[in-house]
Amino acid sequence: MDLNADMGEGFGSWSMGDDSALLEVVTSANVACGFHAGDPSIMRRVTAEAVERGVAIGAHVGYADKAGFGRRYVDIEPAALRDEVVYQLGALDAFARIAGDRVRYVKPHGALYNTIGRDVEQAGAVVAAVAEYDKTLPVLGLPGSEWLRLAGEAGLTAVHEAFADRAYTPEGTLVSRREPGSVLHDADEIAARCTAMATGQAIRDIAGGSLVVDASSICVHGDTPGAVEIARKVRGALEGAGVTLHPFTG
Amino acid sequence: MDLNADMGEGFGSWSMGDDSALLEVVTSANVACGFHAGDPSIMRRVTAEAVERGVAIGAHVGYADKAGFGRRYVDIEPAALRDEVVYQLGALDAFARIAGDRVRYVKPHGALYNTIGRDVEQAGAVVAAVAEYDKTLPVLGLPGSEWLRLAGEAGLTAVHEAFADRAYTPEGTLVSRREPGSVLHDADEIAARCTAMATGQAIRDIAGGSLVVDASSICVHGDTPGAVEIARKVRGALEGAGVTLHPFTG
Amino acid sequence: MDLNADMGEGFGSWSMGDDSALLEVVTSANVACGFHAGDPSIMRRVTAEAVERGVAIGAHVGYADKAGFGRRYVDIEPAALRDEVVYQLGALDAFARIAGDRVRYVKPHGALYNTIGRDVEQAGAVVAAVAEYDKTLPVLGLPGSEWLRLAGEAGLTAVHEAFADRAYTPEGTLVSRREPGSVLHDADEIAARCTAMATGQAIRDIAGGSLVVDASSICVHGDTPGAVEIARKVRGALEGAGVTLHPFTG
Amino acid sequence: MDLNADMGEGFGSWSMGDDSALLEVVTSANVACGFHAGDPSIMRRVTAEAVERGVAIGAHVGYADKAGFGRRYVDIEPAALRDEVVYQLGALDAFARIAGDRVRYVKPHGALYNTIGRDVEQAGAVVAAVAEYDKTLPVLGLPGSEWLRLAGEAGLTAVHEAFADRAYTPEGTLVSRREPGSVLHDADEIAARCTAMATGQAIRDIAGGSLVVDASSICVHGDTPGAVEIARKVRGALEGAGVTLHPFTG
Repeated sequence: MDLNADMGEGFGSWSMGDDSALLEVVTSANVACGFHAGDPSIMRRVTAEAVERGVAIGAHVGYADKAGFGRRYVDIEPAALRDEVVYQLGALDAFARIAGDRVRYVKPHGALYNTIGRDVEQAGAVVAAVAEYDKTLPVLGLPGSEWLRLAGEAGLTAVHEAFADRAYTPEGTLVSRREPGSVLHDADEIAARCTAMATGQAIRDIAGGSLVVDASSICVHGDTPGAVEIARKVRGALEGAGVTLHPFTG
Repeated sequence: MDLNADMGEGFGSWSMGDDSALLEVVTSANVACGFHAGDPSIMRRVTAEAVERGVAIGAHVGYADKAGFGRRYVDIEPAALRDEVVYQLGALDAFARIAGDRVRYVKPHGALYNTIGRDVEQAGAVVAAVAEYDKTLPVLGLPGSEWLRLAGEAGLTAVHEAFADRAYTPEGTLVSRREPGSVLHDADEIAARCTAMATGQAIRDIAGGSLVVDASSICVHGDTPGAVEIARKVRGALEGAGVTLHPFTG
Repeated sequence: MDLNADMGEGFGSWSMGDDSALLEVVTSANVACGFHAGDPSIMRRVTAEAVERGVAIGAHVGYADKAGFGRRYVDIEPAALRDEVVYQLGALDAFARIAGDRVRYVKPHGALYNTIGRDVEQAGAVVAAVAEYDKTLPVLGLPGSEWLRLAGEAGLTAVHEAFADRAYTPEGTLVSRREPGSVLHDADEIAARCTAMATGQAIRDIAGGSLVVDASSICVHGDTPGAVEIARKVRGALEGAGVTLHPFTG
Repeated sequence: MDLNADMGEGFGSWSMGDDSALLEVVTSANVACGFHAGDPSIMRRVTAEAVERGVAIGAHVGYADKAGFGRRYVDIEPAALRDEVVYQLGALDAFARIAGDRVRYVKPHGALYNTIGRDVEQAGAVVAAVAEYDKTLPVLGLPGSEWLRLAGEAGLTAVHEAFADRAYTPEGTLVSRREPGSVLHDADEIAARCTAMATGQAIRDIAGGSLVVDASSICVHGDTPGAVEIARKVRGALEGAGVTLHPFTG
């Protein structure tokens, strides 16, 4: 199993999360590329540290929107979006290569992630960018999303991820954040669910039924001190259950 | 002899210069990388058209300053500058590779170009960025600049350029733009000087003496309609004199 | 009757349209506030020239999106949008006051204009900003828009504008730009329609029927040389028909 | 005596310092205006809270440089700098007025503050902006700076400030941050010095001599939890010594 988390989300004098602590926990790092967060010096630091620790570097591409942290949908033309994704991929890859590795996968951020779950035009634009840049790059996303469907059609490797702290519907989709109970906060419960997901066992869906979640990577969060604690607990529980942790990219 | 010009200097809905016209004239294109000018879609368009025409793609890296068009000195820390240059190189290279080629050289823009002519710290930062990114990339600049001196020391290929429309001092440096007569405007005179420079003949310096300018590339301008006309005249004169035009990168 | 046009839409070294030419034609200037276009020095120049010519200064507020020129919908939280509009109003007003006048009205730009025609939340946010900043500022928009409806409810003066070069449906709304025939290009036809609108006569709608358009201001465009010519023709026709041109703000 | 501190220096999802804690300590708030830090929603929040607590609102104007937090010198043309300062003044004043007060003074930030201590052109540009915007606004700075000298010549009220945690030379200027001992860290020592400065007594300069610092305001810092503690101690010591704290603006 792989654990992925967002990283490198500071900007200039502003910091966010504890990248170093998180890089001790995860096996894949979704590194911000300077559009919704991050800057060149942060990208250098995070990619260097990821390579040191054997953590796979993923391009966490987003809308060009630092003021909104990439969390606001932007109705950008698909061709412009495609070009913005290519730009971000190239920029991050430069740092990854200087650090001795290269970008290993792509995972969109925030509002872009949500949008391309269902918007065919923007999903196609991001897929086109990745396919143009490097057809061997796998992409990370939700099962059933337009993003992964179109990526598969384009010949990219589409990889399923699960969310450690989110409730699931009986159909296996995420419960909207607006619903009560959509986000889990108890570290032990989250760790136990992740262990179940990683060992092929069922978890409880929001309606109380049994659900088997098929994923090659579990997303944990790290933008608060408490979140790092939860991520550590998840890793500990997985290792305790004999699950081997390694980047999904192999 | 090579002819180089700045290109891709629009931004979003704003345009500057006539890139297509200029790409018919020059053999090397200094393409803006989105920091002082340019954006991802412009970078795609210009690199694609350059490759079509056999024009070499150079990274025209600059300060992150669209409001000032990269013409304002910024007292940025050398490490941050180095990282900003790496970022720009990677981003432009992504488009150059998608277009079927790659970035072939580096030429800094505006205030950064001027600063690293004499500022050892910033010059060293840009040199470090290029050396880290790709030690085989030649760099373009003024003879006698710190930029080329440090590039040479770092094992990069330092290439001299001359300016088509600028007056020279008897010592072979550019006459400051603040001095009268520093910029030439007569197309025939400019073309004749370029032909002299390309064939190893002397030109007249600002004091009236003879000066042989040693350069592998001549920089022409293209940000006004008149400038494109001058560039065309330069090319015509060079070809008329039997000078073969090709990218200095070989 | 009032003629309004967008102005001050350059940015740094990039220009757009011919503000001086347009200021000779219109009676109200929608001045960009540095978010979708414009910058402090442009704002100073345009407001100063507007005051000199007796042209009323309007705040042309937009999304914070220079890369997209404010033409992309952004799903920004209403409170953040409200604050961005206040910020723009204050900034432009500073220049208007230094020039000897003040901001006289508000007209949103591009995607924001379109969005608040129907989106109650964003429309309410812009209305709240104007009401907080200065309850006496009239707002300009389309009849039937949420923007004007909510502005009226908030006690602002809601002013109807018509578009010189746009086709109308039989219901009096604008024909979508995606439809054939939605934008008129013939200067004489445009001038004739404006004269009809300004004198209470009917124009022809897209279906061939008669339509009386009720408006206190007509929007003309100026971002191309041809557009300035059309604007001049509109002004000439109106004056020829005895229509007095003056700012709708009185 | 007045205590001033920088505030509102977050940006979007990024925070910096604890504005609310600091507003309980100081009597004047230097509020970032969205150029080096801050954004419209932060400006609204900080100005509203400042007014609630009776803290005077100052415009903390800076270079347009979020990536460098306004700490990098920018060689901007004086006219453009003047216009950027006017823009920031107008934007902050809009929020101050909505909160029920108005901008009460101007204090430049970071590299701009340092630059206009000695650069006549940039100092003159900022003075011109303030004078144009509102001739009654006092400006805060270091005794002996070009900034205060030119402000005085322009008819503005120039107010001296001292720094709570900085060592002074025998001549009464700040010891450069590059020198050892330039920044004090002991809260009790800092508090004692502030009390001395506020009561007209001498402090010890870096060479061990006696120095009387003449200031109407003391600048404390708040961008770290420790700094807020020091600021509290300074306030406590001043009040303990019978010094009345109130905005220098009266």
